[in-house]
Amino acid sequence: MLGLMQEWPLSCHKILDHAERQHGNREIVSRSVEGPIVRTSYRELRERALKLAQRLERDGFREGDRIATLAWNTARHLEAWYGIMGMGGVYHTLNPRLFPDQVVWIMNHAEDQALFVDLTFMPIVEKYCGAVGSVRRVIVLTDAEHMPETSLPQAVSYEEWLGEADGDYQWKALDEHAAAGMCYTSGTTGDPKGVVYSHRANVLHAMMIAMPDAMGLSSRDTVMPVVPMFHANCWGLAQATPMVGAKLVMPGSRMDGASIYELLDTEKVTVTAAVPTLWLMLLQHLEETGKKLPYLKKVLIGGSACPRAMTRKFQDDYDVEVIHAWGMTEMTPVGTLGTMKPQYMDLEGEARLDVKEKQGYAPFGVEMKVTDDENRELDWDGKTFGRLKVRGFAVAASYYGGAGKEQFDEDGWFDTGDVAHIDAGGYMQITDRAKDVIKSGGEWISSIELENLAVGHPDIAEAAVIGVPHSRWAERPLLIVVRKAGREISRDDLLSFMNGKVPKWWLPDDVTFVSEIPHTATGKILKSALRRQFRDYKLPTD
Amino acid sequence: MLGLMQEWPLSCHKILDHAERQHGNREIVSRSVEGPIVRTSYRELRERALKLAQRLERDGFREGDRIATLAWNTARHLEAWYGIMGMGGVYHTLNPRLFPDQVVWIMNHAEDQALFVDLTFMPIVEKYCGAVGSVRRVIVLTDAEHMPETSLPQAVSYEEWLGEADGDYQWKALDEHAAAGMCYTSGTTGDPKGVVYSHRANVLHAMMIAMPDAMGLSSRDTVMPVVPMFHANCWGLAQATPMVGAKLVMPGSRMDGASIYELLDTEKVTVTAAVPTLWLMLLQHLEETGKKLPYLKKVLIGGSACPRAMTRKFQDDYDVEVIHAWGMTEMTPVGTLGTMKPQYMDLEGEARLDVKEKQGYAPFGVEMKVTDDENRELDWDGKTFGRLKVRGFAVAASYYGGAGKEQFDEDGWFDTGDVAHIDAGGYMQITDRAKDVIKSGGEWISSIELENLAVGHPDIAEAAVIGVPHSRWAERPLLIVVRKAGREISRDDLLSFMNGKVPKWWLPDDVTFVSEIPHTATGKILKSALRRQFRDYKLPTD
Repeated sequence: MLGLMQEWPLSCHKILDHAERQHGNREIVSRSVEGPIVRTSYRELRERALKLAQRLERDGFREGDRIATLAWNTARHLEAWYGIMGMGGVYHTLNPRLFPDQVVWIMNHAEDQALFVDLTFMPIVEKYCGAVGSVRRVIVLTDAEHMPETSLPQAVSYEEWLGEADGDYQWKALDEHAAAGMCYTSGTTGDPKGVVYSHRANVLHAMMIAMPDAMGLSSRDTVMPVVPMFHANCWGLAQATPMVGAKLVMPGSRMDGASIYELLDTEKVTVTAAVPTLWLMLLQHLEETGKKLPYLKKVLIGGSACPRAMTRKFQDDYDVEVIHAWGMTEMTPVGTLGTMKPQYMDLEGEARLDVKEKQGYAPFGVEMKVTDDENRELDWDGKTFGRLKVRGFAVAASYYGGAGKEQFDEDGWFDTGDVAHIDAGGYMQITDRAKDVIKSGGEWISSIELENLAVGHPDIAEAAVIGVPHSRWAERPLLIVVRKAGREISRDDLLSFMNGKVPKWWLPDDVTFVSEIPHTATGKILKSALRRQFRDYKLPTD
Repeated sequence: MLGLMQEWPLSCHKILDHAERQHGNREIVSRSVEGPIVRTSYRELRERALKLAQRLERDGFREGDRIATLAWNTARHLEAWYGIMGMGGVYHTLNPRLFPDQVVWIMNHAEDQALFVDLTFMPIVEKYCGAVGSVRRVIVLTDAEHMPETSLPQAVSYEEWLGEADGDYQWKALDEHAAAGMCYTSGTTGDPKGVVYSHRANVLHAMMIAMPDAMGLSSRDTVMPVVPMFHANCWGLAQATPMVGAKLVMPGSRMDGASIYELLDTEKVTVTAAVPTLWLMLLQHLEETGKKLPYLKKVLIGGSACPRAMTRKFQDDYDVEVIHAWGMTEMTPVGTLGTMKPQYMDLEGEARLDVKEKQGYAPFGVEMKVTDDENRELDWDGKTFGRLKVRGFAVAASYYGGAGKEQFDEDGWFDTGDVAHIDAGGYMQITDRAKDVIKSGGEWISSIELENLAVGHPDIAEAAVIGVPHSRWAERPLLIVVRKAGREISRDDLLSFMNGKVPKWWLPDDVTFVSEIPHTATGKILKSALRRQFRDYKLPTD
C-alpha cells in the first residue's frame, strides 16, 4: 500500500523558486573578478539563471550535457550552476589548482560540452582548451568591456551572451535522481574519479546541513562560503544558503586575510566556511591589525583537521564558535559536524577542546562505521581505529565510468579511504588515510599522529611518516622531517621528545632529515613519492 | 543522465536507527496513563519497536495493514507507531474526541486490522468495537497488573504481548513511497476523509520542521508535544524529535494547566506545541500561582488562530517566543510558521505582534498561492484574500478511497478550503474557511473577522457569522451571538461597537441572540447546523 502524497521531485530549481518567492530581495554580494563589489538578489539570481538555461538550450546544449565551470565564488558562477541544472545540464566544477594536464584529462573524461571561465583563468585555458575536443563554446564570465582577445572556440562574454535571452523559460521537469553536478576527486595516486551529484542528493544534503545541530542556517544569517565552489561542491552552501534565504557573500578571487576580513566586517557575515590554511591567514591578519570579529558567530572548518590552537583562538579571543567538520567530495560533501550534544554543551576549557578536536558526529542522512581489514565492525570506544565507511542519501554509489569499484561494497557502504575511531558519544576522529597507516606486525600505527607529534617540536617545520619494509614486522615507521631554518635538532633528541607521548611500539625506527617534502597540487603531502624515494631504505632495527 | 548517488530510501525506521546510534541514551519521559512518570530512552524505544514489529508479524499482520491507535502521548504509543511502520504497517490514529459512530465509520472505512488502546478509552471501545468486523486483535497499552476485564476480541495487555518477542528482527525494506500512517479529517460536513502519509513525506516533513526558521529543533532541546499524536500527525514531532535526538516529554492524559506546568518545570522543557485552548489553561494556572517559565524558549501554537493577547503574554510576561503556525492534516501537517525574517527581526511592541498575528510563511517544501473563484492567482499584498492552495513534498495528492477529488487540481494544487491573504513579505493570514466566507454582490466578507470583532465586546461570550440569502446581494452576513451571563447588550449597541472597524459594507445586516451555538465534537462552531437553522431567516434589509 502506497502513501497518498504528492509527487514533488527534489529538484534544485525548487530551491531557487523558493528563495525568489520567500526571500526575493535578500542580497547576494560578490567581490567581482573585475574588482568592484557587486550586489544582486535571489530574485535576480533566478531571473538570470532562467535566461542562462534558455540561452544554453538555444546554443544546442541538451539534458545531461556536462558544462564545465572554472571560476571563483561569485553570483555569476552561482547563476551558471542554477542555469545549467535548470535546463537539465550537469555543472562540472574544475579545480584551477590542479596541474593543467589533470584538468585536460578530467574534461576529456567528462566530455564537457561548454566552459564557463573567469578572466583569471583565461591564460591557462588558452593553453589547454585545444586539447579538449568536446568543448563547443567558451563563455567568459565578464561583460563586453572586459572581454579579452582570445582564440578560444566560439568565445563570448557572459553578459552579451546572456543578454540575448529574455528569460521566458520553464525549468526542465526532471527525475529527482537526474544528474545535477559533477566533481572529480584528485587522489594522490591514480586517475581522478568523477562524482556525480543528483538533484535529490543536493536538495537533501542542503536540508541536512541547514539543521540546527549541523550548520544551523537561518534566513537571518549572512553566509560567506570562502570554500570555493570548485572544492567539494562548495560544502553544500550554494544550495543551503538560498534554501533558507540567508544573505550570501561571495569572496571572488581574493583569498588573503585582509580581503576576507573586509567582507566579514562590512557585510556583517555571521557564518563562514573554509579550510584551516585560510583561517590561519585571517588570524594572522587579525593579530597584526588588532581587529575583532563582532558579527561572526560560527566558522565551519574542514578539508583537513582543524588544529586545537585554532579552535581555541577563535573561541577565546574572538568569541566565534568553531564547527569542525569532515566530509568528502563523494558525500556532497558533509559527513560529520562537531556541534555539541547535550552531554557536552556545558564543557569548558581543555575538556571542550577535547571534543572540538574531533571531527564531530553524523547528522540524520549519514550512517558511519569503522571496520578492521576483515570488514568486522569495531567498537565506538574513542580509540580503536579502523577503516571509516559511510552510507547515506547524499553518498556516492559509484564513480563516473565505473572507476574505483573496490571502494563500494554489496551492502551499500562506501570505503572513505580514511582511518578513524568513533567514541561512545558518536564523535569521529580521523587518524590517518588508509593507505598511509603503518601496519606493524598486524597492528595499525597512525602516520598522522606521529607527524602531528613531530611538528609539535619547536625545531621542526614539516614532518611525514611512511611505512618502510621490515623483515620481522612487515612494516615499521620512518619519520622524514624538514628542520626549521637555522635549527639543528638531532635524530635522538627528536625521538626522546616523542617518547612517552605515543605507545612505545609506535615510535619511528628511524628519522631522516630532508630539505623539502613533496606535495600534491592541492597542498597535501605526496606520500606516494616519499614511498618510492625511500623504497630501499634500510632501517637500523632490521 | 542520472546521478550516481546511493539508494537510501527515506524510511521512518531510519529516524529511529539514527536516534539509537547517535542519541541512544537521550531520555523519553512519559506521564503514564496508570499515573507514574516513566523514563525510557531512544535505545529502548528502538528495541521495543523492533519487538513490536516482530510480535505483530507473529500475529499474522502484514505489510499495508492498517493498525489503529486510540491513545495519549506516551512512549508506548510512540513504540506502537515505529513498530507498526517498521513491519510495513500503517499507524492509524483515532481521535477519541469524535463521536463513537464517527470512529466506527472511520475504522470500517480504513478496515483496521488491530487496535492499540489506552486504559482511558476501554469503556468506549467496549461499546463500539463490535461494530468493526476487521479488528482481529486489541492490545491494551498497559501491563498485566493493570489489565482490566474485557470482552474485546483477543484482548491482551501490551507488556505481556510484547514480552513474547525477542526483538531479533530486521526492519522491513520498503519503498519510501509506502504508506506509513493514516489520519482522518473530521470535516464539519460530509464523511471524514482519510489522509495517508508516506514514509518519505514523514521524513522530509521532519527535516523541514526541524530547520532553524521552522521549529529550530536541536539535540540540546527538550521537546514536549502536548498536541496529541491523534491530532494531525502530532505536528510531525513524533518524527522530528527523535531525528534530532532531543529529549522527549510525553504528557499522557493529563492536559490541565497544573499538570502541563509540572512537566514543563521538572523536565526543563525548552520547546512545546499545542492549540490555543491548552495554552489558555496554562496561562491561567501561571497567573493563579505566580509561577514562571524559566526553561521554556519556544511555544508552537496552531490548530486555530493564536490570539494576539496570548502571544503578548508569553513574550512579555514569560520571555517565551511564540511561533504561530498553520497546517492541515493533509499537510503532514505543517504549512507555515511565523518565525521572523531578517527584515522583521528587530521589530518590537505592536509592530512585532502585527507580524506574529499572521500564521507565518511557507518553509522550503511547501508552495502556496491564493486564488479567486476562477483560479486566478491573487497578489501578495496582505489584504486581497482568496482560496489558499498548496503543493509540496508532504501534501496529500488524494484521500483514501478517492473521496474529495474536487480539492485537487490537475497542476497538483490542493485546495485547503481556507481563505487567506499573503503579504509582500510572504506571511500568510487565514481569514476564513471557504465555505463560511460570505459572498455579497461578488465580493467576499470574512466571517471570522466579524466574529473576532464581535467577541471583542466585553458583553459577548461567543459569536458566529453566516451568510443568509438576500435578493439583491445574493448573501448578506447575519451575526449570531451568545451574551455573557447577566449582560444585556442590544443589537444596535453591538453594531455601533463594530462600526468603523471593518469596511462599512461588511457590517452584519442583523444580529440575533441565542443561548447556545452548536459545536462539532472537536470544538469548532458547527456552521452547517446554523445555516440550516437560519435558512429562512428574513433579513430586515431585504
